[in-house]
Amino acid sequence: MTFKERLSQLRQNHDALLSRKNEPEELSNGIYTRYKFPVLTAAHTPLEWRYDFNEQTNPFLMERIMMNAVFNAGAIKWQGKYLVVARVEGADRKSFFAVAESPNGIDNFRFWEKPIVIPQLAAPDTNVYDMRLTAHEDGWIYGIFCTERKDPAAEPGDTMSAVANAGIVRTKDFVNWERLDDLVSHSGQQRNVVLHPKFINGKYALYTRPQDGFISVGSGGGIGFGLCDDITHAEVFDEPIIDNKIYHTIKEVKNGMGPAPIETPEGWLCLAHGVRNTAAGLRYVLYMFMTDKDDPSKVIYAPGGYFIAPKMSERVGDVSNVVFSNGWIKDDDGTIYIYYAASDTRLHVATTTVAQLIDYCKNTPADGFRSDLSVKAICDLVDRNKSL
Amino acid sequence: MTFKERLSQLRQNHDALLSRKNEPEELSNGIYTRYKFPVLTAAHTPLEWRYDFNEQTNPFLMERIMMNAVFNAGAIKWQGKYLVVARVEGADRKSFFAVAESPNGIDNFRFWEKPIVIPQLAAPDTNVYDMRLTAHEDGWIYGIFCTERKDPAAEPGDTMSAVANAGIVRTKDFVNWERLDDLVSHSGQQRNVVLHPKFINGKYALYTRPQDGFISVGSGGGIGFGLCDDITHAEVFDEPIIDNKIYHTIKEVKNGMGPAPIETPEGWLCLAHGVRNTAAGLRYVLYMFMTDKDDPSKVIYAPGGYFIAPKMSERVGDVSNVVFSNGWIKDDDGTIYIYYAASDTRLHVATTTVAQLIDYCKNTPADGFRSDLSVKAICDLVDRNKSL
Repeated sequence: MTFKERLSQLRQNHDALLSRKNEPEELSNGIYTRYKFPVLTAAHTPLEWRYDFNEQTNPFLMERIMMNAVFNAGAIKWQGKYLVVARVEGADRKSFFAVAESPNGIDNFRFWEKPIVIPQLAAPDTNVYDMRLTAHEDGWIYGIFCTERKDPAAEPGDTMSAVANAGIVRTKDFVNWERLDDLVSHSGQQRNVVLHPKFINGKYALYTRPQDGFISVGSGGGIGFGLCDDITHAEVFDEPIIDNKIYHTIKEVKNGMGPAPIETPEGWLCLAHGVRNTAAGLRYVLYMFMTDKDDPSKVIYAPGGYFIAPKMSERVGDVSNVVFSNGWIKDDDGTIYIYYAASDTRLHVATTTVAQLIDYCKNTPADGFRSDLSVKAICDLVDRNKSL
Repeated sequence: MTFKERLSQLRQNHDALLSRKNEPEELSNGIYTRYKFPVLTAAHTPLEWRYDFNEQTNPFLMERIMMNAVFNAGAIKWQGKYLVVARVEGADRKSFFAVAESPNGIDNFRFWEKPIVIPQLAAPDTNVYDMRLTAHEDGWIYGIFCTERKDPAAEPGDTMSAVANAGIVRTKDFVNWERLDDLVSHSGQQRNVVLHPKFINGKYALYTRPQDGFISVGSGGGIGFGLCDDITHAEVFDEPIIDNKIYHTIKEVKNGMGPAPIETPEGWLCLAHGVRNTAAGLRYVLYMFMTDKDDPSKVIYAPGGYFIAPKMSERVGDVSNVVFSNGWIKDDDGTIYIYYAASDTRLHVATTTVAQLIDYCKNTPADGFRSDLSVKAICDLVDRNKSL
C-alpha cells in the first residue's frame, strides 16, 4: 500500500468509527439503558494527534504518538452540544484532558482540534486525570481534577510513591483555562474532589475524599464535605464524612463522589463509586444516594448495593473490573446521560431520567448489612408479588 | 464415539490447528503488523505428549498429561527454519522448554518430538522459564533462562519464598544442551539475563536485572550490564544500570531486557518489558530503545511510552494484562519477527522491518515525564500537520 492509500484507508476507518450510530440495549433494567458501543476510545482520538502526515518525515506513515485509552470524563451540556472533558492517556502513561462534543450525547463524539492545555503551577503536575465539571452559580465553569506528583519524601530507588491532590481550573469557553491554586486540605492527600454548583451558606462547597496515602485511604476514605471562602485559594479546614466506607458493602475499601450532584425538586442526586478488594485486585462499582435539597451534606436516601457494575466487555481493560463515572448531563427534558468508563480503557453512556433516578433512590431497599436481612427483603417482595 | 473415532478426530483437529494459515491485521499502525492467530498455544503441543494411545491402558483416551500454556519463547533462524524455544507449562505449573519450527515464521509451527532436556546441577531447578537465545560469535548458541529454587532460608510454613537466578546452557543443534554454571552476581537475585552476541572488550557481555527479592525488585530493578571472562563459570562483579525504572512511566515498578539485541548500521535495537502497578495487579508492556554500535551499554535513542501493550484477546489469560517477549528474529531481507506472549498463556507474532524499528526509535518523541509535555508534543504534531 502506498503512503496515500494507507492514509486514505486510515481516514476512512476513522470516519466510519466516529459516525457509527449507537444502539440502546434491547430491554433495560428499568433504571437506566446501556448503549452498545463505547462513545469514546483511543481509536477515536484525531489522526492528527498520532500520525505525522508528511511523507518526507514519516515515510512509513507510522503512529508517532500512540494513544492508549480514553476514559473517565467530566460532562456538561453547553451551547446545545453535549461536551465531555475526557481523560486521554498516551502510550507513555501520561494522561491529559481533551474536549469531545456530540450532537446527541450518545454517539458521533468528535474531539476538538487539540487537547486542553492546563497552565502549570510552580510545582508542575506529573499526571492529571478525572476532571469533574461544575457550572457554578458564580458564572464560571470549574474543573477539579486529580494532580499527582512524585513524593518528595520517597526513598532513593522508590519509583512509586506519589502525592495526589485536587487541581482546580475554570473556564468560560473550554479553550482557555485559568489555573487556580491547588486545594489545601488538612486531612491528608485528596482524590475525587467535586465542587457543588451552589453557594452553601455563602461559601463554595466541596465534596472531598481524604486519604492517608497515595493509593491506600488508610483510616481515611469516605466522602467528606467542606466549605471554603475563596475558590482561587481553596482551603478547607473541616471535612466531616457524609458517606463513609462500610464493612462488607460495595464500598468496603474506599468510596468517592462521582460528578457534581444534579438538582431535583426532591433533593440532590449523587453518583459515587465504591471499591472492594478481591483476589484479583480491587473492584470498582457505581452507587447512588440523595442529599437534602437545602443541605447537600445530609444524605436522605441511600439505596443498597451498586447502581452500575462492570458487565460483558466492560469487565476487561488496562485496569479490569472497574466502572467509574465523573460526568453526567441533565437535559432540559429530564433525560440524564451518564458517562461511565469501563476498566480505565473506554467511555460508555447510559441514559435515564430524573424521575427514574429519584424513584430508584427512594424505593430500592437500603443495605441491611447482613445476608439474612437481604433474604428478608427478597421474601417480602415475593409475598407482595404473590398477593397481587 | 469409539476409541478409534475419538483418536481420529483428535488428530484431525490438531492437524487443522497446526496447518491454519495466519493472517495479518488489515491496517497496522505503521510500526509493526500483528497477526490474527496465536502462533503457539497449549493446544499446539503434540498429542503424543498428552495422550496414551494404548486402548488397553487408556480406554477413555483421556489426556494423561495436560498442557496449560505455551508462551515466552526465545527465537532464532537456523538452517533456513524459524525456530522458537518456547516456555511450555503443564497443568502441574512446572514449565520447561521445547523447540517448535515453522517454514515462514508466522504459522505452521510444529513442536519437535520431545521437550528439551536441561541437564541438572547439584542443586536441581524447581522451575525454568523464559530462555533468551544468542548465537554468539564464539560459535555456540547460548540459552540463558530463569531458574527458580525454594528459598533455603524460608520459614517453616512459608511455601512461597524462592530464589531466582540465571541458568546457562549452550548447544549447536538444539537437541543436545550443555549446562554451564549458573550466573554468579553480587547484586541480589536475577531475572531477564540476556547474553550479547559479540565480545565486548574481549569479554562476554550480559544484560542483567538485579532485584532485592523473588518478585519485588525493591530498590533494585533496571537493566544492568556486566562483563565476564569465562562464560562456563559466569560471574559479573559490576552491573551498572543502563536503563532504569522511572516514576510514572510504563516501567515504574520494574523493567528487564527482552531478547538479545539486533545489530543494525545505526546501533543495536533493544526490546524490553516495563511493568507498572494498577488497582487490578501489575501491567506488563513492551518498549524499545537503541544502544550505540560500539558500546552496547550506551542508550542512544529512547522512544517514549510502550511499543506493544495487551490488546483485545491478549488482555486475558493465566496472568492477565501481560505482554512479554524474549524472542525475535531478523531475517536476511530485513524483516523482523517479534514473538510476544499474551497474558502468560499463548504466543503471538508481529512483523516489522529493521528500517521501521530504527525510524520508530529515532522519531518517536521521548518521554517528557509530565502530562503537560505530552500535550505539548501532541499540539506540535497537530501544528505540523496543519501546515502541510
